[in-house]
Amino acid sequence: MNQDELAARVAHTMLADEGTGPAWGIVIEEARAGYARLAMTVRAEMLNGHRTAHGGMIFALADTAFAYVCNGGNVRTVAAQASIVFLGSVAEGERLVAEAQELASAARNGVTRVAVRTAEGRPVAEFTGYSRSIGGAVVDV
Amino acid sequence: MNQDELAARVAHTMLADEGTGPAWGIVIEEARAGYARLAMTVRAEMLNGHRTAHGGMIFALADTAFAYVCNGGNVRTVAAQASIVFLGSVAEGERLVAEAQELASAARNGVTRVAVRTAEGRPVAEFTGYSRSIGGAVVDV
Amino acid sequence: MNQDELAARVAHTMLADEGTGPAWGIVIEEARAGYARLAMTVRAEMLNGHRTAHGGMIFALADTAFAYVCNGGNVRTVAAQASIVFLGSVAEGERLVAEAQELASAARNGVTRVAVRTAEGRPVAEFTGYSRSIGGAVVDV
Amino acid sequence: MNQDELAARVAHTMLADEGTGPAWGIVIEEARAGYARLAMTVRAEMLNGHRTAHGGMIFALADTAFAYVCNGGNVRTVAAQASIVFLGSVAEGERLVAEAQELASAARNGVTRVAVRTAEGRPVAEFTGYSRSIGGAVVDV
Repeated sequence: MNQDELAARVAHTMLADEGTGPAWGIVIEEARAGYARLAMTVRAEMLNGHRTAHGGMIFALADTAFAYVCNGGNVRTVAAQASIVFLGSVAEGERLVAEAQELASAARNGVTRVAVRTAEGRPVAEFTGYSRSIGGAVVDV
Repeated sequence: MNQDELAARVAHTMLADEGTGPAWGIVIEEARAGYARLAMTVRAEMLNGHRTAHGGMIFALADTAFAYVCNGGNVRTVAAQASIVFLGSVAEGERLVAEAQELASAARNGVTRVAVRTAEGRPVAEFTGYSRSIGGAVVDV
Repeated sequence: MNQDELAARVAHTMLADEGTGPAWGIVIEEARAGYARLAMTVRAEMLNGHRTAHGGMIFALADTAFAYVCNGGNVRTVAAQASIVFLGSVAEGERLVAEAQELASAARNGVTRVAVRTAEGRPVAEFTGYSRSIGGAVVDV
Repeated sequence: MNQDELAARVAHTMLADEGTGPAWGIVIEEARAGYARLAMTVRAEMLNGHRTAHGGMIFALADTAFAYVCNGGNVRTVAAQASIVFLGSVAEGERLVAEAQELASAARNGVTRVAVRTAEGRPVAEFTGYSRSIGGAVVDV
């Protein structure tokens, strides 16, 4: 199993094991070392009072992609901090795509960028996640 | 209706109108001008693969409290950016309390702090939200 | 020496030992456990091309106050991450006051808020710093 | 003058007009549309009490690169918010390189990433800046 296959296996295992991803209808479009792309369709229970996607759900999608990427080397890693800029609103039924890429790492720390766009490519949010490895494996290999 | 009553009415209206708060079981414990305190119990579908509350749900709770506070003056206001530091993990069944307080405002910009703790007071996350007013009323008065 | 005296001694030692604080004319107005208030006057070499205080200098002042607070318990502590919202511009000759307060801590992690205002109280920036203790003493006691 | 030439002219004009860049010894290595790379050597007056580069100066360098990039289209643009993760320390005399790239933009909002590394490529910090255009030209064309 090479690094890309390992990262894909970690991502799919995490999605299967968590309560959130399946509840939100998250789909892994691609996962490889240092990269993941997820999709999620905005449903009625994800809307704020203005009838657009709640910022919390946009963050949650990005945070999920971030988690898959920073655990992709099969070392258990947690989010220490994250920051998000909101760039556009999203209506019910629109499909969101979150594209996560590791930007840098040093010792046990890593930084991952996640761009959230609609399926048509309209910018929705830019997320930056800061992770710390805590040791232990995510999947048995 | 004074400023505290107006802020409370905005918060309760927003909760009633949105898809997310009711779906997540969010309860408003207190809402007044510049302040809101919400509670939410962590459920199975809010857990990550480590069986602790997903960071996205912790953010979503904080972001909800932030939204109620920055709209509390009954001027429609949106999140422009937010940042979160994760300080502790939370198990299924634990109750989270998010306490939001406006720190500063200038022109149409505002900054709100949200402390997320367990009901017992254990620190879970610190959130800082940056909002911009876009005009228009949230509730009819 | 009580906790407040220790924190003050740490702050004054850090200011004396660093290259930056003296170069920028930073003055400690107050330092006690979990709190510090610093002042700095904006000089010509701190201005951006619009002739207002450069955001980097506003951050640097806030970051300095953050460092004094998170080291105040005399355990060496470093900045892991920081976030700043800019709320207003500042002219040459204006005096900036940075007021730092620890918001939360858990294990070796801490979160400190710094409000930057002019001496007249006009909001300039809100800073949130995330620190990690690395062990060892800052001052001999 | 094409977009890359315009962006370069804006960057060089901003550096010439500001107090900070010349005071800090900042050099523009490259500037084109959506991109800038700056360098700065760490001097004694940029050190903290641990004798490593002060986080405020690392931020200031990144913030400068961010400003050149987000103004590069010759529409006056200011920093609304910024976030930084610190990944490694830097000694006196080391040369820092800040590489800034615009990640996304929508309406008057933009997001720019700045990677700060040593000249040898060691990661020092990852910066994310959120900008807003306020209108007006930076340089006469």
